[in-house]
Amino acid sequence: MALRNVKLTIAYDGTAYHGWQTQPGFPSVQSTILDVLKSIFGDDTRICAASRTDSGVHALGQVGIIEIDSPIPTENLPKMLTDKLPPDIAIVGAEDVRRGMDIIGEVTNKQYRYSICTARRRPVLKIRHCWHRPGQLDIPAMDQAAKLLVGKKDFKSFAAAADDRKSTVRTVFRCDVTAGQGDEQDWIFVETEGDGFLYNMVRNIVGTLVDIGNGRWKPEKITEILEARTRTAAGLLAPASGLCLMWIKY
Amino acid sequence: MALRNVKLTIAYDGTAYHGWQTQPGFPSVQSTILDVLKSIFGDDTRICAASRTDSGVHALGQVGIIEIDSPIPTENLPKMLTDKLPPDIAIVGAEDVRRGMDIIGEVTNKQYRYSICTARRRPVLKIRHCWHRPGQLDIPAMDQAAKLLVGKKDFKSFAAAADDRKSTVRTVFRCDVTAGQGDEQDWIFVETEGDGFLYNMVRNIVGTLVDIGNGRWKPEKITEILEARTRTAAGLLAPASGLCLMWIKY
Repeated sequence: MALRNVKLTIAYDGTAYHGWQTQPGFPSVQSTILDVLKSIFGDDTRICAASRTDSGVHALGQVGIIEIDSPIPTENLPKMLTDKLPPDIAIVGAEDVRRGMDIIGEVTNKQYRYSICTARRRPVLKIRHCWHRPGQLDIPAMDQAAKLLVGKKDFKSFAAAADDRKSTVRTVFRCDVTAGQGDEQDWIFVETEGDGFLYNMVRNIVGTLVDIGNGRWKPEKITEILEARTRTAAGLLAPASGLCLMWIKY
Repeated sequence: MALRNVKLTIAYDGTAYHGWQTQPGFPSVQSTILDVLKSIFGDDTRICAASRTDSGVHALGQVGIIEIDSPIPTENLPKMLTDKLPPDIAIVGAEDVRRGMDIIGEVTNKQYRYSICTARRRPVLKIRHCWHRPGQLDIPAMDQAAKLLVGKKDFKSFAAAADDRKSTVRTVFRCDVTAGQGDEQDWIFVETEGDGFLYNMVRNIVGTLVDIGNGRWKPEKITEILEARTRTAAGLLAPASGLCLMWIKY
């Protein structure tokens, strides 16, 4: 047999984890999955993901790559791994990829979804997956502001000060603010797609859009914030619980 | 001031609790709420609920009654109490009721909803609120069987052996098995309304309906099970995580 690379699609409820990345002394999604991988493929196994999701952030379409030397058919991996994982993590897809694929560098598109509950009542069954912020927000104003984020721009104002990546230029393909339908009338969703996002960028964007929705700022403020190129220009960091990594494309 | 009775409507995610009822050494919804009530109304405060939901069972419309001697307006109680409660519990309504109301004995209708996810993929963001049972089920057969439960009947076969209530006769007004729509195509919901339910009755009904949905039994088996009047005649106990107490009427 020969070593082969397999791309895994991973879903998790991030509430119980200190983010994707292994940190000594804290439970992480990576270390939880790695324990299962090692039990099957040996202690040398590693897994590298496309996104380092933060503490409390969720994923339906995180992507990770593993290198294995095993006769187990790729299509059997999702069930086999999921059966050994805790209930809040699942491997939802597996696909053979070429050796040496750069799981971070070859990403072309990512989509995130942020959920805000504006109801007065606390949504106890969804509280782990939203920002509960009672009180109406001006959704058309938020959506108008969101449209000003679309394009290839310097998003330095929306990056955490701790972000040490060299370039803060990213391309946002889409950013839509929509009201929930049916049972979700008191919900607002912010969906954004881009070629990549800086550390805390989506949560800083959402915090800023909420400051526009509550009337603190006009939608045009976005342009001013982008031009300032400093984190202090933007709004508050929205809570991690509302954020979900939906998918990653190559 | 005089003592007054207030009826509280309570919502919770039951995952972290050993049921409603206080049990020494275990976290319960009752003891968690009681701690908050005592901090506001004094150490003598008590709360009695209409349903003793089991460990892991959820509620959107549990009802509890308290007796207080306080100038706080009733309409202020939900927010005041919820702000002091953990994120998985909320007081979603408060209403003055007559002194001496029997919160258990005066119930006329209750509704429960049970959620089954039949998708192959583990629904990580909803795993705490469903029974994940991959594989198709025959929904029309399940619904046909559910209809045989409607009426005033002896439900002894669907009661936990531990149930020590004198009469096992209850009236089920409605029992519907429906497929989810839209994003919930792989979901099945069992909704049942009755004047009361025996211990584990809804979960035993759901376990039996699943045995009908997977072809083990024909829908008519329900009549045979009811006539047997023994727990061993019915199907498996469905997991607590799928069950939610929706509302209680007086």
